[in-house]
Amino acid sequence: MKNTEKSTINLSSDYLQGAHPDVMKRLAETNLLKTAGYTLDEFSQSAREKIRKECNAPEADVFFLTGGTQTNAVFIGAYLKPYQGVIAADSAHISLHEAGAIEFGGHKVLTVPSENGKIKAEDIRDYIDGYYSDKNHEHMVMPGMVYISQPTECGTLYSLDELEKISELCRKNNIALYADGARLAYALACDKNDVSLADLARLCDAFYIGGTKCGTLFGEALVIPVHNLIPHLFTMTKQYGALLAKGRIAGVQFDTLFTDGLYYRLGRTAIDAADKIRAALKEKGYKTLYDSPTNQIFVLFENSRLEEISRNAELGFWEKADQDHTVMRLAASWATTEEEVKDFISVI
Amino acid sequence: MKNTEKSTINLSSDYLQGAHPDVMKRLAETNLLKTAGYTLDEFSQSAREKIRKECNAPEADVFFLTGGTQTNAVFIGAYLKPYQGVIAADSAHISLHEAGAIEFGGHKVLTVPSENGKIKAEDIRDYIDGYYSDKNHEHMVMPGMVYISQPTECGTLYSLDELEKISELCRKNNIALYADGARLAYALACDKNDVSLADLARLCDAFYIGGTKCGTLFGEALVIPVHNLIPHLFTMTKQYGALLAKGRIAGVQFDTLFTDGLYYRLGRTAIDAADKIRAALKEKGYKTLYDSPTNQIFVLFENSRLEEISRNAELGFWEKADQDHTVMRLAASWATTEEEVKDFISVI
Amino acid sequence: MKNTEKSTINLSSDYLQGAHPDVMKRLAETNLLKTAGYTLDEFSQSAREKIRKECNAPEADVFFLTGGTQTNAVFIGAYLKPYQGVIAADSAHISLHEAGAIEFGGHKVLTVPSENGKIKAEDIRDYIDGYYSDKNHEHMVMPGMVYISQPTECGTLYSLDELEKISELCRKNNIALYADGARLAYALACDKNDVSLADLARLCDAFYIGGTKCGTLFGEALVIPVHNLIPHLFTMTKQYGALLAKGRIAGVQFDTLFTDGLYYRLGRTAIDAADKIRAALKEKGYKTLYDSPTNQIFVLFENSRLEEISRNAELGFWEKADQDHTVMRLAASWATTEEEVKDFISVI
Amino acid sequence: MKNTEKSTINLSSDYLQGAHPDVMKRLAETNLLKTAGYTLDEFSQSAREKIRKECNAPEADVFFLTGGTQTNAVFIGAYLKPYQGVIAADSAHISLHEAGAIEFGGHKVLTVPSENGKIKAEDIRDYIDGYYSDKNHEHMVMPGMVYISQPTECGTLYSLDELEKISELCRKNNIALYADGARLAYALACDKNDVSLADLARLCDAFYIGGTKCGTLFGEALVIPVHNLIPHLFTMTKQYGALLAKGRIAGVQFDTLFTDGLYYRLGRTAIDAADKIRAALKEKGYKTLYDSPTNQIFVLFENSRLEEISRNAELGFWEKADQDHTVMRLAASWATTEEEVKDFISVI
Repeated sequence: MKNTEKSTINLSSDYLQGAHPDVMKRLAETNLLKTAGYTLDEFSQSAREKIRKECNAPEADVFFLTGGTQTNAVFIGAYLKPYQGVIAADSAHISLHEAGAIEFGGHKVLTVPSENGKIKAEDIRDYIDGYYSDKNHEHMVMPGMVYISQPTECGTLYSLDELEKISELCRKNNIALYADGARLAYALACDKNDVSLADLARLCDAFYIGGTKCGTLFGEALVIPVHNLIPHLFTMTKQYGALLAKGRIAGVQFDTLFTDGLYYRLGRTAIDAADKIRAALKEKGYKTLYDSPTNQIFVLFENSRLEEISRNAELGFWEKADQDHTVMRLAASWATTEEEVKDFISVI
Repeated sequence: MKNTEKSTINLSSDYLQGAHPDVMKRLAETNLLKTAGYTLDEFSQSAREKIRKECNAPEADVFFLTGGTQTNAVFIGAYLKPYQGVIAADSAHISLHEAGAIEFGGHKVLTVPSENGKIKAEDIRDYIDGYYSDKNHEHMVMPGMVYISQPTECGTLYSLDELEKISELCRKNNIALYADGARLAYALACDKNDVSLADLARLCDAFYIGGTKCGTLFGEALVIPVHNLIPHLFTMTKQYGALLAKGRIAGVQFDTLFTDGLYYRLGRTAIDAADKIRAALKEKGYKTLYDSPTNQIFVLFENSRLEEISRNAELGFWEKADQDHTVMRLAASWATTEEEVKDFISVI
Repeated sequence: MKNTEKSTINLSSDYLQGAHPDVMKRLAETNLLKTAGYTLDEFSQSAREKIRKECNAPEADVFFLTGGTQTNAVFIGAYLKPYQGVIAADSAHISLHEAGAIEFGGHKVLTVPSENGKIKAEDIRDYIDGYYSDKNHEHMVMPGMVYISQPTECGTLYSLDELEKISELCRKNNIALYADGARLAYALACDKNDVSLADLARLCDAFYIGGTKCGTLFGEALVIPVHNLIPHLFTMTKQYGALLAKGRIAGVQFDTLFTDGLYYRLGRTAIDAADKIRAALKEKGYKTLYDSPTNQIFVLFENSRLEEISRNAELGFWEKADQDHTVMRLAASWATTEEEVKDFISVI
Repeated sequence: MKNTEKSTINLSSDYLQGAHPDVMKRLAETNLLKTAGYTLDEFSQSAREKIRKECNAPEADVFFLTGGTQTNAVFIGAYLKPYQGVIAADSAHISLHEAGAIEFGGHKVLTVPSENGKIKAEDIRDYIDGYYSDKNHEHMVMPGMVYISQPTECGTLYSLDELEKISELCRKNNIALYADGARLAYALACDKNDVSLADLARLCDAFYIGGTKCGTLFGEALVIPVHNLIPHLFTMTKQYGALLAKGRIAGVQFDTLFTDGLYYRLGRTAIDAADKIRAALKEKGYKTLYDSPTNQIFVLFENSRLEEISRNAELGFWEKADQDHTVMRLAASWATTEEEVKDFISVI
């Protein structure tokens, strides 16, 4: 297994490593305790309480699921009526990179144009108005939900103002608003960010607090601020194969993330690393895309330069820009060390 | 969280505790290594190799999934054609206790009578013959697979002879045979057991090696002896929300389970504990059901006696036998200590 | 095509011929009129009004669908929540002979024992009680509906008293009651029958008035007494591929069936024919099964005798009784003539 | 019902009336013949033979289904593997106007840009290449089929050359090509058309010959040139609720359509009517869209003029062009009379 611990720099993704050491420590400490199954244990209950408090949502239902695609499939599938679809950016993860899991569950993803991964209230409104003003709309898929990501796939953030506009529009049209928070820690820790967990709980009908990319071995916390919004969701998670027998493993991890502000702190670690890299890239004249302030950086490289850098650092391929240029993704995480940042800066 | 570590005896289930200490240790050791995602990492590859070797199935596809219901839903759903269903015991877990996940995936569970959780080749044959001899069978669900559990829900075992008969029947009828091995470690470690992993790989089209109840935090290893039996199953696991982003967490755990025979040893620990309890129960005149030789024991208690015992020991409710008697389930596990066994024997 | 008009007697089924001559006449008369599509035309509206009146259900929603399996799949699928299943007789059409359409739609058929095709309120109650008293019922499929057929597959009838008991039980448990009326005309026309359309509308949450087997070219009228019980069912029928573009073809047919009592009269024709055949069979010492008073007759034949009769009359195979005996189904219909009855009696 | 037979001109759609008189006559003549059910009757067999001959596809499987959405849902759903989607025009009927039936069946519609309802081989190729060249394509929906309409929603036609290019591309990529022929009679009868039924059978993996809009009461004939391309499709049609009990009603209708070239002749009637209307519109200076040579005409009207015309003629709303103009759809059909054409021309 020796070649897994590469001495080279690896910024290709934010899920390369295990769990935050505090999380691992707590898992080890609690390992032999006996608890009830299916997230009915005391750790899960404690984690729920902490999340409710942090979200200022005392009645919220909180479900611990395994991964992002699963969480999206379960919430979207369980919430929507059969005749409804979900509005999303044409670039959204559920549109492109979840193997059609939403359609596999029977629902259409209704795409609207996006810029830097974000969609606008106006475009959503146009879609909804277009639907209702079409005289044949009973032969069409009714929009029943809006899906956004915070941060987006491109590392960008919705501002509080933007989110409030979208939320208002959704409520006016009796459409749910759902936010995918796979990398939520890296939004919350940003200086530029003005959307808190409490804001998300106030403005969304559901969102999830990402664990897999933000400090846990696995696991996402689905937060539904209105209690019992989806009756029997517990049973439905079982139908989706998403109910964890040893739910306490997720509970322990989220309980730790929301003890002493670890979730914010580990987000901050990633942002600090990313900020340093961004500054260095700028200084050295590299061009970045999307103006992402979060843990992800999208850099345009000349191919020859990229080849050279790649001998020392593993980056993530994003897309071909043209014959001679490539966009690469760099992702910092809770585990990115100052040393790794320094090493990377030295090779660019 | 103090009340979770109950000083009282708890034999109510075999998934009350975390992972085997060796598994936890290995997770901690490898925690900060960087690896590829989606079970494409070196740990997962190593675990696959060890499993293939143990199963004498060098070409086998091995998928690491999260839990038993998920594994059943993914394999059964991905293998069957839309017009096919799966034959199972009327008491099978997929028939009764998986929230209809198989039907949620579009397939009927076709039940045959069972005894002590087991189904017989003759009853399966009768079902298949009944289907094909019905002149309207094109209006009916075609049996496309047989599902069994080893050990069964009742703790009983299929003998090699029984399994060979079922396998032969399935192959003759071009029907897949699939074995649910949620508690497989506790079958393999039994003195009475004559079915090895290699036998399962030889006789089944797929089976899973249970982790959740047998030493891991979570995770099941789905073994499909014929390579590429189900093309694009990787993508389908994603559709089911079952693809682990940090797949290496499952890989590390299964790699540890199949290093130095840990999977067999931890199974043996449970069987030793269960055997001692069984002997004590017999000596004290208790009646047990199903003649289970594995880690589960089903005991008939007089209600008044049960109430007394329950003050000191937590057992699992199984069913009401009559007004005055109750059947309880006792489950030993890899984590059951000699002390706990002794304590329990002293209170019955 | 000459060999289709067999001179021999054919009682093998009740959907061998086209539509009742009055229905054909009305289709021809209205053929070139121009109307709106999708059952929004005046004929469909008129048919709905007549059905509402006949059912004493002035607010009822009435949908015209193509066939029985489709109607069952659409109503059951659209009504049930994802975590619910439908209780039915183990011998029910949806359990055995609809190719798993209900499971294909994601829902489990929960079987209870039946006698002569009928299920009892007590058995339904036991099933429901068993579900709710099981401490693990959140891991099981919740019963959300009861499906019955009137008449049943065996030609038997639910009495008003039996139906009221089942209805009361369902309402007490907040479970829908749905009746499959594929052959409803042949129940309504029976002397023994005491369940009217108005009773069905009062006691069921939905039922369908069969056309395909009762006088139309195709088509079933799904009656849902409570308006908007299932919001957007129109759109859902489209999703199921069940929305008729030229809905008026169904509308014209049902409008005719409910003009001047044609539906009752054509049912009576079949019952009269069946009664005469039953009397003749009894007189000649044949044994019948199930005591069906409707248009279907199930007769036990000695094989040698059956062979002889089959030279002159086509009957429907039902099941092998033993080595020497076979049960055959005889079905009269709205189109069975006195001459055919006489001819058949002469050959038995 | 008097107001259904409007004296005013109605060109709003091509499914306003019943069946072609020859079809109605044959239904009446055969009405009381006794035949087998489920399209196993002699009429259906005869219709199949005639269709096979016309398509020069002697081995073709031919299924008679009820309507277009159903036929699309059944073929696409039954053919695709769970991990595959279907490529279609962004304006395709399955993309927009079938209530999400394809997604309801579990598959994503993968849209490519279209012009006048048509998609180009190059755009399909780009989509496929984009998929396979994406390093994450195993996390994406695999294109498994291309869906086109002949004629398209906009009344335009694929030329033989265009169709051959698309077909070649599909075969090279092992992707099925499927053509929706809801209005196929109106393509086949066009002077401009150079694609025959035999071409479709040679170039497509499946297509359907539309009946509902082309002369029948209901019904579409799904033609699959390679026998048994989809094993057990009969059972799957039952699962979709699409198997007609009295299948002979569809069989009689299609047998008539393919006797003495009726299908071509009735198509010609519509094209003649449409051509006259097109000429008159041109002469009077109206602007038409899409350059449709088939039975549909899309005309740009000044709103004030449209209001006036609408007093005498019912047209179909298509879309708002701007504040002062509206695009309306005019559809001729097999039933459009010379008188109606003359009347319409006199009011524009």
